[in-house]
Amino acid sequence: MEHPSPVGASPWQISTLGAARLDSPLAPLIEARERSENYVDESDLVLVDDVLSTASERGVPVEQLPGLEPGGPRRKIFFDPSKLRVGIVTCGGLCPGLNNVVRGLVLELWHQYGVRRVHGFRNGYEGFVASYGHEVVDLTPESVRGIDEQGGTVLGTSRGQQDPEDVVDCLERLGIGVLFVVGGDGSMRGALGIAGVVAQRGLKISVVGVPKTIDNDIPFIDHSFGFQTAFARAAETIRSVVVEARSTPHGVGLVKLMGRHSGFIASYAALARNDADYVLVPEVPFGLEDDDGREGLLSLVQRRVAERGNAVVVVAEGAGQDLVPGDGVDASGNAVLGDVGRYLRRRLLDSFAAAGRPVNLRYVDPSYAIRSVPANGYDAVYCLRLAHAAVHAAMAGRTAMVVGRWHGRFVHVPIELAISRRNVVDPHGDLWLSVLEATGQPTRVG
Amino acid sequence: MEHPSPVGASPWQISTLGAARLDSPLAPLIEARERSENYVDESDLVLVDDVLSTASERGVPVEQLPGLEPGGPRRKIFFDPSKLRVGIVTCGGLCPGLNNVVRGLVLELWHQYGVRRVHGFRNGYEGFVASYGHEVVDLTPESVRGIDEQGGTVLGTSRGQQDPEDVVDCLERLGIGVLFVVGGDGSMRGALGIAGVVAQRGLKISVVGVPKTIDNDIPFIDHSFGFQTAFARAAETIRSVVVEARSTPHGVGLVKLMGRHSGFIASYAALARNDADYVLVPEVPFGLEDDDGREGLLSLVQRRVAERGNAVVVVAEGAGQDLVPGDGVDASGNAVLGDVGRYLRRRLLDSFAAAGRPVNLRYVDPSYAIRSVPANGYDAVYCLRLAHAAVHAAMAGRTAMVVGRWHGRFVHVPIELAISRRNVVDPHGDLWLSVLEATGQPTRVG
Amino acid sequence: MEHPSPVGASPWQISTLGAARLDSPLAPLIEARERSENYVDESDLVLVDDVLSTASERGVPVEQLPGLEPGGPRRKIFFDPSKLRVGIVTCGGLCPGLNNVVRGLVLELWHQYGVRRVHGFRNGYEGFVASYGHEVVDLTPESVRGIDEQGGTVLGTSRGQQDPEDVVDCLERLGIGVLFVVGGDGSMRGALGIAGVVAQRGLKISVVGVPKTIDNDIPFIDHSFGFQTAFARAAETIRSVVVEARSTPHGVGLVKLMGRHSGFIASYAALARNDADYVLVPEVPFGLEDDDGREGLLSLVQRRVAERGNAVVVVAEGAGQDLVPGDGVDASGNAVLGDVGRYLRRRLLDSFAAAGRPVNLRYVDPSYAIRSVPANGYDAVYCLRLAHAAVHAAMAGRTAMVVGRWHGRFVHVPIELAISRRNVVDPHGDLWLSVLEATGQPTRVG
Amino acid sequence: MEHPSPVGASPWQISTLGAARLDSPLAPLIEARERSENYVDESDLVLVDDVLSTASERGVPVEQLPGLEPGGPRRKIFFDPSKLRVGIVTCGGLCPGLNNVVRGLVLELWHQYGVRRVHGFRNGYEGFVASYGHEVVDLTPESVRGIDEQGGTVLGTSRGQQDPEDVVDCLERLGIGVLFVVGGDGSMRGALGIAGVVAQRGLKISVVGVPKTIDNDIPFIDHSFGFQTAFARAAETIRSVVVEARSTPHGVGLVKLMGRHSGFIASYAALARNDADYVLVPEVPFGLEDDDGREGLLSLVQRRVAERGNAVVVVAEGAGQDLVPGDGVDASGNAVLGDVGRYLRRRLLDSFAAAGRPVNLRYVDPSYAIRSVPANGYDAVYCLRLAHAAVHAAMAGRTAMVVGRWHGRFVHVPIELAISRRNVVDPHGDLWLSVLEATGQPTRVG
Repeated sequence: MEHPSPVGASPWQISTLGAARLDSPLAPLIEARERSENYVDESDLVLVDDVLSTASERGVPVEQLPGLEPGGPRRKIFFDPSKLRVGIVTCGGLCPGLNNVVRGLVLELWHQYGVRRVHGFRNGYEGFVASYGHEVVDLTPESVRGIDEQGGTVLGTSRGQQDPEDVVDCLERLGIGVLFVVGGDGSMRGALGIAGVVAQRGLKISVVGVPKTIDNDIPFIDHSFGFQTAFARAAETIRSVVVEARSTPHGVGLVKLMGRHSGFIASYAALARNDADYVLVPEVPFGLEDDDGREGLLSLVQRRVAERGNAVVVVAEGAGQDLVPGDGVDASGNAVLGDVGRYLRRRLLDSFAAAGRPVNLRYVDPSYAIRSVPANGYDAVYCLRLAHAAVHAAMAGRTAMVVGRWHGRFVHVPIELAISRRNVVDPHGDLWLSVLEATGQPTRVG
Repeated sequence: MEHPSPVGASPWQISTLGAARLDSPLAPLIEARERSENYVDESDLVLVDDVLSTASERGVPVEQLPGLEPGGPRRKIFFDPSKLRVGIVTCGGLCPGLNNVVRGLVLELWHQYGVRRVHGFRNGYEGFVASYGHEVVDLTPESVRGIDEQGGTVLGTSRGQQDPEDVVDCLERLGIGVLFVVGGDGSMRGALGIAGVVAQRGLKISVVGVPKTIDNDIPFIDHSFGFQTAFARAAETIRSVVVEARSTPHGVGLVKLMGRHSGFIASYAALARNDADYVLVPEVPFGLEDDDGREGLLSLVQRRVAERGNAVVVVAEGAGQDLVPGDGVDASGNAVLGDVGRYLRRRLLDSFAAAGRPVNLRYVDPSYAIRSVPANGYDAVYCLRLAHAAVHAAMAGRTAMVVGRWHGRFVHVPIELAISRRNVVDPHGDLWLSVLEATGQPTRVG
Repeated sequence: MEHPSPVGASPWQISTLGAARLDSPLAPLIEARERSENYVDESDLVLVDDVLSTASERGVPVEQLPGLEPGGPRRKIFFDPSKLRVGIVTCGGLCPGLNNVVRGLVLELWHQYGVRRVHGFRNGYEGFVASYGHEVVDLTPESVRGIDEQGGTVLGTSRGQQDPEDVVDCLERLGIGVLFVVGGDGSMRGALGIAGVVAQRGLKISVVGVPKTIDNDIPFIDHSFGFQTAFARAAETIRSVVVEARSTPHGVGLVKLMGRHSGFIASYAALARNDADYVLVPEVPFGLEDDDGREGLLSLVQRRVAERGNAVVVVAEGAGQDLVPGDGVDASGNAVLGDVGRYLRRRLLDSFAAAGRPVNLRYVDPSYAIRSVPANGYDAVYCLRLAHAAVHAAMAGRTAMVVGRWHGRFVHVPIELAISRRNVVDPHGDLWLSVLEATGQPTRVG
Repeated sequence: MEHPSPVGASPWQISTLGAARLDSPLAPLIEARERSENYVDESDLVLVDDVLSTASERGVPVEQLPGLEPGGPRRKIFFDPSKLRVGIVTCGGLCPGLNNVVRGLVLELWHQYGVRRVHGFRNGYEGFVASYGHEVVDLTPESVRGIDEQGGTVLGTSRGQQDPEDVVDCLERLGIGVLFVVGGDGSMRGALGIAGVVAQRGLKISVVGVPKTIDNDIPFIDHSFGFQTAFARAAETIRSVVVEARSTPHGVGLVKLMGRHSGFIASYAALARNDADYVLVPEVPFGLEDDDGREGLLSLVQRRVAERGNAVVVVAEGAGQDLVPGDGVDASGNAVLGDVGRYLRRRLLDSFAAAGRPVNLRYVDPSYAIRSVPANGYDAVYCLRLAHAAVHAAMAGRTAMVVGRWHGRFVHVPIELAISRRNVVDPHGDLWLSVLEATGQPTRVG
């Protein structure tokens, strides 16, 4: 939730393929709408600022405060549904809710707009490249029935990019007019590249993203879809580990959770099941050894075990990378992180051994279980509504954008803005303060 | 999320008991904070408006846009923790998360502020009145351990008001300096009455509310605590009913969900498990009979069964009250609603019988199961943070206010404002549009 | 688990359609088997008796002790899989595991025996009668994929019988060689009638039942499929009701559970979540009023509320039918029970009112939720193995039988024997003793 | 379920401390009992054999068929409840249901027998040895309230033995008359040692075991407590892994489950969620390489991925130990197994690499999550009833025995018999046949 600095004349401007001249099939629903606080007209804007000081410092009149284009159906649309062909692809790691988004897109296209040709590309961007040999599948209301109750993605997914020229070749060949990309920030960079090639070639193909990040690290998205499901599941793991640590003399539980660059899952999971003693996130450095009068993690854990009989540490995978350097990059172009979990495990064991103290340490990495669960009730609703918003935007001819939710409103965000920075846990923000209050851990470890 | 109209000079103004002169024990945590988007300084305000048109229409400079006081710890506090005695009471119907709030209050008071005398009043406002004979219980970190994993409230609860003079007598007698009231809008009116008597008597007792409403109908609260847990549980019931309707020839499922004045649970549950064919809420009138060329509910259901073999209807308890008038008021002073569920059940059965068509109708009212489940992961975090915010506000001497969350920020809201109107599902808003899109039901039934 | 009295020369004898002369495709699996305690040869028997006294009282040599034919694949089979056409029907009320059984039958027929023509009859016995207009559906491994994760039955179900002559007409017309009937005791009577007509007409159609009873009241079945899922779900309801009763002053919870003639669900659910104070089952009469020095239920509940603040009563739907007579029979031919739940509710309310005591009574009937959940892990395994056993029996030409599990072994039971009596909770047996120990309720109420 | 061979004159004989002369407080419950199939009189026996051939081969008259002493309350008891002091200890690894057993013991002792001094020894056998410094805790109905909803053990546990002389010293010092040991086969050997020292010293201390083994490998126990909960949880993990494998091109899932010597959890979990392609258990050897015309595991997995796009392998931790030898013994004296999971992971990766084929392999070891969940409904009932049976046995003066369930009946089993061998998955038995049928894997791999 860092504050966005407008980097250009109008960083919030959404690109369009052209004038939307066709009447929307949803017009009857829209016309009946009366102006209200629960409906932002398509000509209005959702304010970027929500705090008085920030807005004031803009130094502009109220009418010029920056805003994001609201989501929702438009009175006029760009594409003729009866002729439109739509593609959907899911990219990157698994995240709860992928199938809900796919299903939501398909149902909205079919039932509200009357689009009858919707295609799923298999296994991420590989699905556009013939050499991988993945088939393109037809998506219908029948074929997506019940998929929202399953985890994973029925389309398959993969990491890594493909040449955007190849992708656009494929889109042209198949006559695709709208491409929905459900994926993380790497995939969104890919989508931006695709939209770029589309523009160069003078094509009329809309590229709309539904941003996926189990780590919740995309800006202009209050909570990314699947995040609530994920941290609730992570909290169950913390519970298991707490049970073990408390059932064993000198029990220490160590849980590694997702979070390459941001500690949202670790923080929320620790709050949800607040039995963790120490939470370590990428945004807040920590030391293992005592330093300058402050206890390091090793001393803290030893002392906690001595005083209470057990201790539980939750660590985000991206925490402490200064202690345990990573190695190279993966297929998505993401840096391969050092394994902080195994490193902490060894250091903790060594420190107890060195002190001649018994310890029963349990180290757990439950990522697989968290990624693959079906969306919970909240995320099911959220994915469905994100999908609706994405369809409305694409049908109106918007492109090179993602759908988001800002302060509770569905909005359109240029891809460029969405990938311009990461959302992180602010060490001075309210969330981290809550973690400190709930765990009682010192503000600075080591 | 209707837009609040400031009704006076400063409807957002929070009352205080007096100047906060003591250093907060949390000062070390707060001092370290740097200005950021994730931390609203206590001198700043959270903007009431989040849409450009609304803000513009205020006709004031940016600096004068109305705002709510942010939640969070203050540098100076009013009460001396070592001398303070705190009371907690839970009132009204059950709601997921009550125990989480109670536990969060107790832990924050003990561990962050060092308050050692925290008392629970039993069974709602009855607990302040000697004639009911309920004991006052001591609340300690030990006594609240694990209660967040249980539904219900360990303090007990009851509906209905007590004379605020009696309550304040009790508070005075016990030397209570801060009273936390966790309850619905009736209870908040009660809390306002108590704060009034406190003021009349010139006492220094802070009354801070944590608003509870499983119906999500309190304004200035994005989602009330327990709401997400509740609608997810309600969605499971819809699932059961869909299973039955589809397993039976001519199966009709009818589910009555909470929602006296607002259809949030019905709407969200229907979106989460979107197999419901028709959703009926208090905010959108409907007819049973065909009228003026529009099909009424009875025809719609019959046709759906004829075409697809089954149909599922979700109805909020407050829907269709023009069809089935209620009777009197209950102990909380709430109007007793007519039983729309049983009424619809009978009318549907009659209509199939009249048409000579077979039907297997299943009517279900799962309220008991929804109210009493433990909070899910999200609500667990939310309740904890609401409790933190409530403690910070009270320690700083705020009174006659509730804690809320507005556009994702924790804020202070005067009780008077919080009970000034209800949050409802706007028939022209985005949520209801999503329901119409997801169910495909006509915008006007009957 | 009452002891079966052999009523004829050989009540355990299983009927066959004729000599099984074809080699089983499973022969390679079977031949490799060595004699062991975990594999009962097809020529062996599973002893009916498991207690020394009962066996001794038979007065026969060991070799003549009565036994049931074991389940499992036979070396020789009767039907040629390449020519066989199979029908499956699900009848009666919903029960967890129906879809698991259907899927298990289909997969075993396809993958182990190579049968390619498997048909599902829709909506119970109605599916055989043209006038209902239900389609026959093809069942393939693809079409049953994932159905085990859903509750209900994909085939649909209905109560009530059809003329067995009509059913056999349909079977003949479609060339069905094996019919699997998944249903309760009414349906098994129907299956016996069908097998009778088959025999009269000299047809070679095997009729094999998989007995379904959520009430667990079929003899020679340790636990009927779905029972464990059902009582665990019922226990969750008890938990909800306990939460409510304890959160309310003078809280009384009253839960009505399934169990027309037998109190298994009520007993097991009460043991699983043992917070119920009183459990009422059909097998153990009880009185409401005090009688002959014994307290009746009304006094007991009042006293419990006075002493502990709350009370929870679990009642099986068939309990206390002497107090609240039923009315007629339903479509399945089952007596319509009197509504003991609502009756107790009223009597309890009246008794508190008469005593001038406050009470908050919550009455809950969660049957819909219990019937429609998917099978849990245990029942998933059990349904699959029951389905395997049913297929093996049918392929070998067995008919007019059901598959069961006796003392942990899969066995064949003649339908006649399976419907000869009901399994009930023995008031002098171990289960009821456990209930009395766990609740502390008096052996005789009223 | 291997058949027990009587190794001596009377291997089934239960030891007693002496004549039971006191009237049981449960006498009123027992006297009312009438002879029935659901109640085995204390003078009767539960037959060891349940198959005709086995019984016949005994070559004895029916009256001399071997039997186990039935569980349940006795008319006369040995200990005077008002003077008795009882100890409870939980030993070895975690298993769902430990807290249910502890609670069941405490409640039965208090409420049915009136014993008021019940003590919990902390952290397994360490709790009896002063040098560990663990406190003895008092166990009351109040202190065990709600513990059955938590996983783990409130008493703590540890692996490893202590000198039985030390243990008996402690028991004597505290005046303990009955010791309940909840633990695995190592702990039962320990219990036997304790009972031996008790006998040598001529003391009157009853030692009664409640056998715990998440692997289900104790003989004379149909299913050990916690087993159903455990395999159902394991099945959820398989589901997660299947989701991942199917969402990824060339996805291979590899799940390592508990099962040092017996593959019950792997087999049942694979049946419950039958999407696994290959199940590997300790009892059935397998090869990685092709051999003698049979495909080895590596080829099978490669072929499956080529044909279907993905494959899932479930392996019990004790499987394939000929391929990956272990190393030494742990604190409980159990052999440290080789890590077959990691070994298979590497070999599979190497084999795909060698073949120049892509693969996305996910390896998961969910043991921590399985061990620490609360008992499900079935296990909750089962643990409670086992606890009741254990209390009845001990109060009647039985010793050096464990409670078990044989063919559905609660029985007493001498410790010596219970530890004489392991229960394993019979490669020729019905369970393994079901696994072969459900997975379609070859009877011999490699």
